[in-house]
Amino acid sequence: MTLRIGVIGTGMIGRDHTRRIAQVLAGAEIVALSDYNPAAARAVQADLAPDAMVYDKGEELIAADDVDAVLVCSTGSTHEAYVLAAIAAGKPCFCEKPLATTAEGAKRIVDAEVAAGKRLVQVGFMRRYDAGYQMLKKVVDSQIGTPLMVHAAHRNPTVPEHYVTPMAIHDTLIHEIDVFRWLLDDDYVSAQVVFPRKSSHAHGKLADPQIVLLETAKGVRIDVEIFVNCRYGYDIQCQVVGEEGLANLPEPMNITTRKNAALSTPIMTDWKDRFVDSYDVELADFIKAAAQGTASGPSSWDGYVAAISSDACVEAQEKTGQIIPITLPARPALYD
Amino acid sequence: MTLRIGVIGTGMIGRDHTRRIAQVLAGAEIVALSDYNPAAARAVQADLAPDAMVYDKGEELIAADDVDAVLVCSTGSTHEAYVLAAIAAGKPCFCEKPLATTAEGAKRIVDAEVAAGKRLVQVGFMRRYDAGYQMLKKVVDSQIGTPLMVHAAHRNPTVPEHYVTPMAIHDTLIHEIDVFRWLLDDDYVSAQVVFPRKSSHAHGKLADPQIVLLETAKGVRIDVEIFVNCRYGYDIQCQVVGEEGLANLPEPMNITTRKNAALSTPIMTDWKDRFVDSYDVELADFIKAAAQGTASGPSSWDGYVAAISSDACVEAQEKTGQIIPITLPARPALYD
Amino acid sequence: MTLRIGVIGTGMIGRDHTRRIAQVLAGAEIVALSDYNPAAARAVQADLAPDAMVYDKGEELIAADDVDAVLVCSTGSTHEAYVLAAIAAGKPCFCEKPLATTAEGAKRIVDAEVAAGKRLVQVGFMRRYDAGYQMLKKVVDSQIGTPLMVHAAHRNPTVPEHYVTPMAIHDTLIHEIDVFRWLLDDDYVSAQVVFPRKSSHAHGKLADPQIVLLETAKGVRIDVEIFVNCRYGYDIQCQVVGEEGLANLPEPMNITTRKNAALSTPIMTDWKDRFVDSYDVELADFIKAAAQGTASGPSSWDGYVAAISSDACVEAQEKTGQIIPITLPARPALYD
Amino acid sequence: MTLRIGVIGTGMIGRDHTRRIAQVLAGAEIVALSDYNPAAARAVQADLAPDAMVYDKGEELIAADDVDAVLVCSTGSTHEAYVLAAIAAGKPCFCEKPLATTAEGAKRIVDAEVAAGKRLVQVGFMRRYDAGYQMLKKVVDSQIGTPLMVHAAHRNPTVPEHYVTPMAIHDTLIHEIDVFRWLLDDDYVSAQVVFPRKSSHAHGKLADPQIVLLETAKGVRIDVEIFVNCRYGYDIQCQVVGEEGLANLPEPMNITTRKNAALSTPIMTDWKDRFVDSYDVELADFIKAAAQGTASGPSSWDGYVAAISSDACVEAQEKTGQIIPITLPARPALYD
Repeated sequence: MTLRIGVIGTGMIGRDHTRRIAQVLAGAEIVALSDYNPAAARAVQADLAPDAMVYDKGEELIAADDVDAVLVCSTGSTHEAYVLAAIAAGKPCFCEKPLATTAEGAKRIVDAEVAAGKRLVQVGFMRRYDAGYQMLKKVVDSQIGTPLMVHAAHRNPTVPEHYVTPMAIHDTLIHEIDVFRWLLDDDYVSAQVVFPRKSSHAHGKLADPQIVLLETAKGVRIDVEIFVNCRYGYDIQCQVVGEEGLANLPEPMNITTRKNAALSTPIMTDWKDRFVDSYDVELADFIKAAAQGTASGPSSWDGYVAAISSDACVEAQEKTGQIIPITLPARPALYD
Repeated sequence: MTLRIGVIGTGMIGRDHTRRIAQVLAGAEIVALSDYNPAAARAVQADLAPDAMVYDKGEELIAADDVDAVLVCSTGSTHEAYVLAAIAAGKPCFCEKPLATTAEGAKRIVDAEVAAGKRLVQVGFMRRYDAGYQMLKKVVDSQIGTPLMVHAAHRNPTVPEHYVTPMAIHDTLIHEIDVFRWLLDDDYVSAQVVFPRKSSHAHGKLADPQIVLLETAKGVRIDVEIFVNCRYGYDIQCQVVGEEGLANLPEPMNITTRKNAALSTPIMTDWKDRFVDSYDVELADFIKAAAQGTASGPSSWDGYVAAISSDACVEAQEKTGQIIPITLPARPALYD
Repeated sequence: MTLRIGVIGTGMIGRDHTRRIAQVLAGAEIVALSDYNPAAARAVQADLAPDAMVYDKGEELIAADDVDAVLVCSTGSTHEAYVLAAIAAGKPCFCEKPLATTAEGAKRIVDAEVAAGKRLVQVGFMRRYDAGYQMLKKVVDSQIGTPLMVHAAHRNPTVPEHYVTPMAIHDTLIHEIDVFRWLLDDDYVSAQVVFPRKSSHAHGKLADPQIVLLETAKGVRIDVEIFVNCRYGYDIQCQVVGEEGLANLPEPMNITTRKNAALSTPIMTDWKDRFVDSYDVELADFIKAAAQGTASGPSSWDGYVAAISSDACVEAQEKTGQIIPITLPARPALYD
Repeated sequence: MTLRIGVIGTGMIGRDHTRRIAQVLAGAEIVALSDYNPAAARAVQADLAPDAMVYDKGEELIAADDVDAVLVCSTGSTHEAYVLAAIAAGKPCFCEKPLATTAEGAKRIVDAEVAAGKRLVQVGFMRRYDAGYQMLKKVVDSQIGTPLMVHAAHRNPTVPEHYVTPMAIHDTLIHEIDVFRWLLDDDYVSAQVVFPRKSSHAHGKLADPQIVLLETAKGVRIDVEIFVNCRYGYDIQCQVVGEEGLANLPEPMNITTRKNAALSTPIMTDWKDRFVDSYDVELADFIKAAAQGTASGPSSWDGYVAAISSDACVEAQEKTGQIIPITLPARPALYD
């Protein structure tokens, strides 16, 4: 009854998911590993999954008879091909974001999954599994009336030189883009970006901070501050304003001290700590659905819509101040 | 040495300021009262200032020999004439907002005061005197680096039928318009208004909520949610994001209870309670300066700029989504 | 109608009350000053009350025809005599704590006031006038059911060498002793003191921290931590546990920042800042009652009971761990 | 490599641990079940562990060749015998609290384990594994200086009729008794109990609330309010006061709303929700150590000391107000 999983891509996240399945979660085991650098795959095998086979090619891993389900953790440009292969093989597939590097690529995956006739793909939007967002969704759905506005912030202490302006959308805002659709059960119809005074801590190729203004089909107005050189911490804020009241995403639990003339609670500085528990929950969800031969959670459709929405936000960065419309195709019944 | 004050307009706020000077604050006494309805003035005289003279006309009160300084608390359309008369008489004058009902009217007051050669007018922007904003300004000036963004909200439980869309600027946002200029030591260069889904609790002639987006000369981006049928309370929020960290306007002090399965702190529901202490402080400041024959605090120039900025915000309401430029004349040296 | 006040003792608190009456509060003026060091009185006269008479002796000040009411701000050992003189003169008298240096002395004042037949004395227990305690009392009286327990702390960053163990009662706990009687409308029936491990920051003649356990006539159990070398701040905590819920004294309002990997609010370090606003309110209350020829607020009886209760706490310090009974005489009807 | 576990006692907690091992945690499987009511064991087998053997007697389960480790979840009076049998069989054993119903019984287990020469027993004091207490211990060990005092509360909304006064120690305070020893790395030297006014919501055989005052070998003074009819929620509070500052156990993470004139965060009302995550962590810890043939976490010695300390607290209830000494035997080296 144990689900036999193969992992493609054994970098940081692939190694971590392997550990998770081998040592933390019940119900699954790692039987296959693959990486474009075979030595990396063998290192993970040695450390975490001594009984796993190592394959040279991801396609071979997907095809292997003893592989029931696949995790795609390789570099983004390879995701589309692996996911399509897993769908073709009829095997449930967990794909780290992005689902594909273009909206068109994501569309091809959606089409293939629709043709297959059942959900086989889960995209790694882990925030939906975070305990705080789960609590927030319950309160938004039941206690504050119709949502009217969302005020949000995504802040990071610092980013390296290679992080340039569009990455604020593709690598940073992408999480909000997905999680707000889920939180509000809604889609975007327009995007606008405005640039405040630039922080002196931002390097030359990055406009930082930015404010992204989104409008949804139901008329909700969302403002998201993206500030990736905010210095003070990794800080995710989300406030939903409804007709009857408002609700805030909880602060991560931490110790309050009274010391040195201050009442103080630590703020995380490393993004890897912030949603670490949600990785366990998302993979447990994958294992549970994959054991039934299907997938749940964030879908290919969600990955496709995230790609379309992101593209509009990048266009809105380039045409500062303009309101860029977002148009989505009709949603296939598979994703209702 | 006691400052002898005359009050024009003895409605709610005029009566309250009379009480404040007669019973709370040191250094001044009420010697004259006037109202377009003389019975109202006599009622305040009877209750609070038995030794005061009651004048039929505000102009007579301003001219009276024993009146050292004037409070203008009458209806907004009469402010300009009374303030001009006080300037002409060389008497310090505290004027409730608005300074005038048009930017042109405010300009005439600025011109008259500049011609008089000294500050004689204080405008009733009491938030600058609020303990919370005072604390916030100190922190903004010293602890969080250069300000880059302000996220704010002005929420009221409900408004009556006569409150229509432009009043969200003239009666509500006007406080933020003034206090952010002071907080940031900055001026506005553009305004944009977007309208979220309308609350079902808002009546027909009011778009509620609204989001006003302001840009300043120094590049600070400000977003203010105005939501005057928010149901839950009168709630003023302000967060300033700087290069090194961020600071929040404090919540009003209140009791936290643990009761009925909740950790809970009351939120005010009546706006009159929120800044009540700041009225004492602003009038104490007026008394102090007026005893020296001059005025301090929010100036005619501040009232004039507030009028220009408000007009742009109303235009931005009418041209939803458009970014409306705001242009100010040069600031006279008197207001440096 | 202006109340004419004489101040005996022009040290730190006497000077501050003089300023308060001369410059902040309506309804009173300083007409007389006295100090055992006449130069000190003259300095205050020069700075704050140029029209006041300076008297060599407090008794002369009390007797002066133009003095309507008296503030006793001199050194503690002189309070009893001045208060008795004020009562004898039939003049309302505000007396800084302690009312007297012994319970017997306080008893003589109570007896004199009862003989005079009306309230003439207000003791300077300013915490009853603090906005936070006022809010707490309202909630305790109406929202949390019958009080059962109080958990409290009185912490100070550091104390000088001359502060020895009994001063933790007479100078520090004395505020809690009074304010809890008022908060709970109750009296003490026993006291116990236990000593935790001594802080290495406490000097040789001081046991610090201490925990005082009080029991009231209604059965409420109170624990108060006294920690006067706590290092981190001046911090007053009070939590009342009732049958239906519990309520906390609010933290003083202050700015919350996000900076340096912490969400942080400053804690005061100087006790003089903590209750500074309540001095204004207590003196406004004195002025109002004294204008009617009487006194309100904390009474001679309260001062007397505080003295008896303090004596029991000091005995409980000396007999560590023992439960010391507290017995009060019957309360005269004047203080009902 | 999978640890084969047998569970004795399949009531609420035994069923829940079975589910945890079968469905949540990696590294172990349930191979055997036993209950004094065999039908109960078979029901759990059917629902959660279809491949497990069901044994009539716990002793048979312990002796079974394919059982590597044992969970004792049966009724308290049977714990001692099962744990002794597991030690005799050389098998790691997780025992729900109490380790034994008497201090003498716990002593016999300690002696047997010492004779066995290695740790084989983990006691189910799950609070040590709670994320909040883990955070608190780190801060206590590193940031607030030497601990001097602990202020704590253990509150429950209501208790049934059969919950009588001593159960406040044996069933409620027992968690604090263990976790504070671990938190402070210290032992108790005395206990005192005082009874506040009784809540009108407490039934006749229960004194509620109670305050337990503990003193440790290092001189730390601990006060714990036990209030099991507090009405408002299940609320665990713990504040450690150190020489340099103080630290609070975090509130459980929850959503803050602004609604109905209050800023509010829910408080749990069911104790089963409060430490639910820590059960996963404690059993993961058991699996990890048991796979090495030993045990870690709360030891038999901890269970024995908890029993001695509890007995002293019950004596302190009976001799209200008296300080009862607590004397421990020397700690065997096995538990250093």
